[in-house]
Amino acid sequence: MRGILYGIGVGPGDPELMTLKAARILRACDVVAAPQSAGNDKTAMAIAAGFVEGKPVLYLDMPMTRDKAQMDQSHDAAAGRICQLLDEGKTVAFLTLGDPSIYSTYWYVHKRVLARGYDAQLVPGVPSFCAAAAAANTALVEGSEMLHIIPASHDSTDEGLSLPGAKVLMKAGRSILQVRDKLRAQGKLNQAVLVERATMDGQRVVRDLDALDDPTGYFSIILVKEGQR
Amino acid sequence: MRGILYGIGVGPGDPELMTLKAARILRACDVVAAPQSAGNDKTAMAIAAGFVEGKPVLYLDMPMTRDKAQMDQSHDAAAGRICQLLDEGKTVAFLTLGDPSIYSTYWYVHKRVLARGYDAQLVPGVPSFCAAAAAANTALVEGSEMLHIIPASHDSTDEGLSLPGAKVLMKAGRSILQVRDKLRAQGKLNQAVLVERATMDGQRVVRDLDALDDPTGYFSIILVKEGQR
Repeated sequence: MRGILYGIGVGPGDPELMTLKAARILRACDVVAAPQSAGNDKTAMAIAAGFVEGKPVLYLDMPMTRDKAQMDQSHDAAAGRICQLLDEGKTVAFLTLGDPSIYSTYWYVHKRVLARGYDAQLVPGVPSFCAAAAAANTALVEGSEMLHIIPASHDSTDEGLSLPGAKVLMKAGRSILQVRDKLRAQGKLNQAVLVERATMDGQRVVRDLDALDDPTGYFSIILVKEGQR
Repeated sequence: MRGILYGIGVGPGDPELMTLKAARILRACDVVAAPQSAGNDKTAMAIAAGFVEGKPVLYLDMPMTRDKAQMDQSHDAAAGRICQLLDEGKTVAFLTLGDPSIYSTYWYVHKRVLARGYDAQLVPGVPSFCAAAAAANTALVEGSEMLHIIPASHDSTDEGLSLPGAKVLMKAGRSILQVRDKLRAQGKLNQAVLVERATMDGQRVVRDLDALDDPTGYFSIILVKEGQR
């Protein structure tokens, strides 16, 4: 019988923020698959490490690129290697940060495996922005407000910031100071809080973004809420 | 010593989608607090039941109303009763569906307890829309798209539906057929999938919204993704 592929959201960083279901499947699976790339740094594997000791691990190259042909090639290759394992009857658990349905590289592998006629399931996880809100001890969104999740490394940041409602700016990375400057230009700096590495080692909450002078890393999220914080 | 209040996101419905942290705090806490209202139907307590057996439970009236004075009164009263327990040195775990930072009624209690100088912490959970995506076996959002979370029971639905990017329509409740009609009018019906009671008993995924003729319940979510599904 063919195995099943599970795309496991391991949550934002703290291993205790994995779900009971993720922990159960990780303990029971035959093979753990995890992305490997310069930017990703095996973070998902570090979170899950305590649950998968001694299991065979399949590291898959998932380059962080916007080159479509290169991406397609790496996703096809990853899907191919996973389908081989499924054909052998193995259960494969693919680790993905946060939740697998939100900006996950894993999704591109998942849909390929589905398209080849295999059973592949998503196991939801806690998204990083929920952890960032908890770290800042604030609500993301209340009442009748809309909530906009905006990938701030792309060009839509200006448009997104102008929308009515609460905002989450993700993946700003090294352009975080430019995003801060856009917030200042729109008069929204006092509505914003930055959370770096939420629930990971080195977590930092910055409430005065004017004081921010060092570009923060990939795991930085800015929360913007209407009205003063 | 004063106790601590934890706002526990118990996730979307399946008790296995609670985090390990939520399970640990629920097992360790002195008192469990849970909202009680006509609409809510003690759902959060049903999810957590297996972890809090034998614990004292404080049910708090949280009427589902848009009357500001009535809401303020119930939130003040809830905060007052919780602070009494914290003064007695009790640890209180307040159950909230999904994640406590996203449209949670609990937040109004949390901020009051904080304002009175007590220690209150948020424990993030899996939001219902992540569970809906997993149930429909689809991504919510990819690449450089924005993701808009829209409370569809309010008047901003038309505006929200016109935004570029992926959308999650929440809390449509009995107006779900009107929301469907708006999607049809905007030519977006083939981009939409409805998930009812994601990960709960009676889960249903409706991919042909044209075929929907019975108003679904409070726990219905419509996912809209650009391009055809």
